[in-house]
Amino acid sequence: MTEPAARATLVDQTAQATPAAPGATRPVVAAVMGEGVLDRLFDDAARVRLAGLSHGGTFAELVGFEDPQDEAVLADIEVLVTGWGCPRVDASVLDRMPRLRSIVHSAGSVKWLLDTEVWDRGITVTSQVDANAWPVAEYTLGVILLANKSFLPSARAYAAEPATFSAAAAFPRIGGYGKRVGIIGASRIGRLVIGLLDRHHVEVLVADPFLTADEATALGVRLADVDEIVATSDVVSVHAPSLPSTRHLVDGRRLGLLRDGATLVNTSRGALLDHDALVAELARRRDVGETLNVVLDVTEPEPLPATSPLFADPWVVVTPHIAGSLGTELGLLAEGVLDELTRLGDGRPPAHPVTREELARSA
Amino acid sequence: MTEPAARATLVDQTAQATPAAPGATRPVVAAVMGEGVLDRLFDDAARVRLAGLSHGGTFAELVGFEDPQDEAVLADIEVLVTGWGCPRVDASVLDRMPRLRSIVHSAGSVKWLLDTEVWDRGITVTSQVDANAWPVAEYTLGVILLANKSFLPSARAYAAEPATFSAAAAFPRIGGYGKRVGIIGASRIGRLVIGLLDRHHVEVLVADPFLTADEATALGVRLADVDEIVATSDVVSVHAPSLPSTRHLVDGRRLGLLRDGATLVNTSRGALLDHDALVAELARRRDVGETLNVVLDVTEPEPLPATSPLFADPWVVVTPHIAGSLGTELGLLAEGVLDELTRLGDGRPPAHPVTREELARSA
Ligand SMILES: NC(=O)c1ccc[n+]([C@@H]2O[C@H](COP(=O)([O-])OP(=O)(O)OC[C@H]3O[C@@H](n4cnc5c(N)ncnc54)[C@H](O)[C@@H]3O)[C@@H](O)[C@H]2O)c1
Ligand SMILES: NC(=O)c1ccc[n+]([C@@H]2O[C@H](COP(=O)([O-])OP(=O)(O)OC[C@H]3O[C@@H](n4cnc5c(N)ncnc54)[C@H](O)[C@@H]3O)[C@@H](O)[C@H]2O)c1
Repeated sequence: MTEPAARATLVDQTAQATPAAPGATRPVVAAVMGEGVLDRLFDDAARVRLAGLSHGGTFAELVGFEDPQDEAVLADIEVLVTGWGCPRVDASVLDRMPRLRSIVHSAGSVKWLLDTEVWDRGITVTSQVDANAWPVAEYTLGVILLANKSFLPSARAYAAEPATFSAAAAFPRIGGYGKRVGIIGASRIGRLVIGLLDRHHVEVLVADPFLTADEATALGVRLADVDEIVATSDVVSVHAPSLPSTRHLVDGRRLGLLRDGATLVNTSRGALLDHDALVAELARRRDVGETLNVVLDVTEPEPLPATSPLFADPWVVVTPHIAGSLGTELGLLAEGVLDELTRLGDGRPPAHPVTREELARSA
Repeated sequence: MTEPAARATLVDQTAQATPAAPGATRPVVAAVMGEGVLDRLFDDAARVRLAGLSHGGTFAELVGFEDPQDEAVLADIEVLVTGWGCPRVDASVLDRMPRLRSIVHSAGSVKWLLDTEVWDRGITVTSQVDANAWPVAEYTLGVILLANKSFLPSARAYAAEPATFSAAAAFPRIGGYGKRVGIIGASRIGRLVIGLLDRHHVEVLVADPFLTADEATALGVRLADVDEIVATSDVVSVHAPSLPSTRHLVDGRRLGLLRDGATLVNTSRGALLDHDALVAELARRRDVGETLNVVLDVTEPEPLPATSPLFADPWVVVTPHIAGSLGTELGLLAEGVLDELTRLGDGRPPAHPVTREELARSA
């Protein structure tokens, strides 16, 4: 049900809509996101539920704020459901939505989407940053478990010499018992990863300038500095936000500190890792007979040029920014939006509010 | 501390040994396993603890039962700690150990190690099959999480065309939400995998002729037959034992039923999968423009010949039988042995007994 153009489409789904609970007030809702995005998130059933949670059992669908024909729609909007591809919401856009009281973002960060003016005007903001964080944590857990098992390196070494290969001899430190995992950034995703690791027999260290040692202990982990983490961990996973202060946080010096055979995972942003230094370090390790396993879901630049040596390196896996919500996982974002709209309709506080204070140190 | 030859070495560690608790009776212990195996399992601290749990703060180390010089040692043994490389314990071996009352196996299955005569003589048997199962479950969880994320296929497709690649377009079913995972065999490992999946948003089906629908429900999963599992699951993971009845359980017909893009994981035994049929099915899928992702930790034969097309197939990962306890994980087996010896010394029942009845349907 992709709508063709950049103008409001009033989707009338009154017939199938969930009847409003007695006394519940349904807000005027509009969804603004890139073309086709709403359809990727909301299947037919979820779309019907969205309409049922909107005033009159119907909601407006926009792909932007530019079309003069949408002026009347904008003037009425009380709840804006935003998503990937929604243009930036700044003061001039807000001026045209005088009744707006909530923005329910269907994806992760709102940092680049919303002007601080939104908070100045007392508009409630919620996002699906938690739902969006979950698949990244699952991806990371999968990578950590298989890294501990030398999954890819052992497959490669075995294929080269199947008759005589001995995993115990080639990988004496293989195994998930007693390994050290270093988490850089006790961000939402970093904390989810820490939580998922609690069942596994690994020691977890975490680096985060905003975390106290006591908070780390409460998470069941130990606070450490980034240097100790890179120098002593078997797997290092980066989960800090991209900020001026985190640019090239993992630089050439720190890459040099990584243990022989360690695994570095970056699912945060390409900017946190110095990619030129990584290419140089991989070459250096090869020269000295050491290995470094690298898993990158994000790169700098992104996409990587086809000529990047990282694609050809057998020690490196580069996935195309898939750790976050994609495919079937988009349904989880839609569920989150519907949950927030239900709460708004019932006058309950949102489940995942975004405060202005959080923005500065968030992704 | 690898002992050179096939004869008993009395390791005197009285000095460092834990003093026996007042009133605790320490049994005469001997460890029998392949050369060097004890050292791989027991680090110095664990070895000292083992000695401390033995009569006189010392235990005998044998690599077999053949040396006539060991006769006197055998005659005294009350508890036998067995491990990989220990020769089969049959009636004639048992005749030479008249005081034997417990066998504490430091690895997984005792099926090929112990004659049923052991149970006839009322000897208690314990094994570390649970500790050994855990790493296999972790490996499987890692593979399932990354399979849901199309980890390897998306990395491969991205490398081929980085500038234009779209994961959402290429892998519309990517994601860990709402996927179906089929478990063949509610074995120890199968149950651990089911337990580990409870945090993830997948639907789990299980096939096992020894499991009732109610038992499956109690595990939070649905009982299904193998055909339904292979035909409808996104990931199929095989955890049944190798028995005459499970030989080629996954045959050509069932391979043909797997969904386009599905992942088949085998960490059980190579015999459960028809490898010739797999090679043919992979070729057929390629012809019809479909894919089948395959992860094999065990094969038939094992090791696979270097010429096997499975090594060269980009859809297939073959790891060298590493899912079970290896490397650092051996420490977990030693912990389990020490725990059983402590229980024996204290007169408590063993934590992981092996009954004769279990043997028939176990791995
Ligand atoms: N690969 C993907 O598909 C994907 C999807 C979602 C998010 N991400 C990325 O994952 C990362 C984590 O996302 P999130 O939503 O959990 O972040 P978040 O907004 O929760 O991160 C903020 C937190 O990071 C920590 N932090 C800030 N500065 C730090 C520093 N210098 N060193 C260490 N920690 C620091 C602080 O605890 C802060 O509260 C971000 O880089 C984000 O862009 C990637
Ligand atoms: N890859 C490795 O390193 C590794 C390590 C340990 C075990 N394994 C293998 O993993 C598998 C599972 O081991 P385990 O110790 O959990 O097994 P187990 O001894 O617990 O398995 C027995 C159970 O399997 C189930 N079962 C029996 N016949 C079946 C059938 N026809 N179909 C489906 N289920 C059936 C029953 O529930 C039975 O109780 C075995 O094949 C074992 O050899 C591999």
